[in-house]
Amino acid sequence: MSSRAFSARWVDGAVELVDQTKLPDRYATLRCNDTDDLAQAIGRLQVRGAPAIGLAAAYGVAAAAARAARCGARADRVVAVAVAAAEHLRHVRPTAANLAWACDRMASLARSADGDAHEVAERLLSEARAIEGEDRAACAAMGAHGAGYLARALPRAHGLAVLTHCNTGALCTAGIGTAFGVVRTLFERGKLAQLWIDETRPLLQGARLTAWEALELGMPHTIIADSAAGSLLSDGGVDAVVVGADRIAANGDVANKIGTYPLAVLCSHHGAPFIVVAPTSSIDLETTSGAAVVIEQRAAEEIALARGQTRLAPEGSPVHNPAFDVTPAGLVSALVTEQGVVARPDAQRLAAHLTS
Amino acid sequence: MSSRAFSARWVDGAVELVDQTKLPDRYATLRCNDTDDLAQAIGRLQVRGAPAIGLAAAYGVAAAAARAARCGARADRVVAVAVAAAEHLRHVRPTAANLAWACDRMASLARSADGDAHEVAERLLSEARAIEGEDRAACAAMGAHGAGYLARALPRAHGLAVLTHCNTGALCTAGIGTAFGVVRTLFERGKLAQLWIDETRPLLQGARLTAWEALELGMPHTIIADSAAGSLLSDGGVDAVVVGADRIAANGDVANKIGTYPLAVLCSHHGAPFIVVAPTSSIDLETTSGAAVVIEQRAAEEIALARGQTRLAPEGSPVHNPAFDVTPAGLVSALVTEQGVVARPDAQRLAAHLTS
Repeated sequence: MSSRAFSARWVDGAVELVDQTKLPDRYATLRCNDTDDLAQAIGRLQVRGAPAIGLAAAYGVAAAAARAARCGARADRVVAVAVAAAEHLRHVRPTAANLAWACDRMASLARSADGDAHEVAERLLSEARAIEGEDRAACAAMGAHGAGYLARALPRAHGLAVLTHCNTGALCTAGIGTAFGVVRTLFERGKLAQLWIDETRPLLQGARLTAWEALELGMPHTIIADSAAGSLLSDGGVDAVVVGADRIAANGDVANKIGTYPLAVLCSHHGAPFIVVAPTSSIDLETTSGAAVVIEQRAAEEIALARGQTRLAPEGSPVHNPAFDVTPAGLVSALVTEQGVVARPDAQRLAAHLTS
Repeated sequence: MSSRAFSARWVDGAVELVDQTKLPDRYATLRCNDTDDLAQAIGRLQVRGAPAIGLAAAYGVAAAAARAARCGARADRVVAVAVAAAEHLRHVRPTAANLAWACDRMASLARSADGDAHEVAERLLSEARAIEGEDRAACAAMGAHGAGYLARALPRAHGLAVLTHCNTGALCTAGIGTAFGVVRTLFERGKLAQLWIDETRPLLQGARLTAWEALELGMPHTIIADSAAGSLLSDGGVDAVVVGADRIAANGDVANKIGTYPLAVLCSHHGAPFIVVAPTSSIDLETTSGAAVVIEQRAAEEIALARGQTRLAPEGSPVHNPAFDVTPAGLVSALVTEQGVVARPDAQRLAAHLTS
């Protein structure tokens, strides 16, 4: 089960990405040579997914520092360049917690780094590699915790039918993914009967990316329109819904891809488990509740044109295009992190989980 | 407020349609010269919407009879041709009640028609015109009943914000529409603040057709991804959801465009009225409940390719593409027909409504 999927990696002093906007037609990688390139790639969603954009930004900061050091800058200049890159990248997308988290971690390391320019740059690269290694390990742990939890909670002789939304796999993490990593672990353990994939309008991360990752792995999967999840749940075709998170507030409210909240309401209506899978770096204790999450509004063209090409709506019709929605903690059956499973997350249980 | 929208009409012995697959890029009409042409147009959704395909089929039967009479067929042959055309068209799409209803009505009239070939053909044309006239009047009555009901139930100083799904306007009825007719009546009475339009994947009847109809009328409207309805309802941006129906079972269960059921669940969760607007011809007492409705499964390409052109999913990924879902009567706040409003429809109230 090899797969060509990855999110961001370090190649010869620059950040290499899978250009996710080209999938599923074409597998292509993209090299970002400077911070502007990378900011543009993040803004255009050539790399996307909360852990992936954090990772890409971390390597972007390391690349900016390495470039400055190569060009003969002194250590204090390398630090300034790294901090500026972190500040720039931090604000490209507002909703994902991991982007700000990774940028802050890199900036903070730069400010405290000792040594000459090359040593500072090396130290920043090590930190980005550490973020990558930690995320890969976190994915493996989330996969094991989540798959174990689901298999115990929902014993099914012929395996589980799981529905997921958006893309949460290797394309958007450093490892096997968050929600998709749980599904992949079920699959590798012979416990996945079917993965239902919401196409995930408007940008179709489910149909374009998750289906592609499932095909790469030979996983049984079927794509549906987002609005078909209701009748699938009603017909008993789905055992559990498993999604990722872009930001989790201190009270357990979950900001995730638009369309997550209706799935949570449907699960509640049908008594199906609604499972959120995210690393603890997605938990932002400074955000007290979902009401405080800034929801990114994106361009009308994402709705009005399919993949920037095919017109789907009249010119002149207004479009409302929020990229995310907020699911109240009360609708979340369980939160899976690299540290374990929090059933019915709330402020108290989340705080206890983080300090455990 | 003139609009170029219509569904099907009689022009020089043939059926003329607005080719809905060309919208919103281009407004084009299509002439169906025989039953095969029309069956193909219905199957390809060049004309769609429950009342519209009933109307188109009625004119199609009349056109087949007129053609036979013009070519010198005897009366019994004209009857046979009409009955065969009705039988053919009746089965092109399985879910909408009106298609079977209109075809049965035309076939039954043909079988009982007296006179020579031309008289039989004329009688069939009159019947199709009667179906058109009745549907136009039904739309006007539904509009008045529904708008009156909503304005009374939800008094709002600045007008109502209504969310709708799919296309239920002049493109798919003989008049102002069903759910869209209610919205249009609110608009004409100065009581519409905003129409939120679900794009309605996979075929985008909301984004392509309802938005186009709203633009033609100068109605305030905004398109959203289907999956954004949840956060709009959660944020209080929607006062009521108003949808049409393809078939209503005897117990009040509603088969309608895929994505209707999740809206009903969201309305129930948020305490927002969920209103179904359909002529009594959509009520099928022979269908005891939603479980008995045949749900049409459509081609994978509708999901995998945008408008038949742009690839949205990998080749090789399976697709599940039900065209409709079923909303249990218990989630319907009110059913609006041409005869009035049935609050909380169930078998008893529906039967009483039909005999009132």
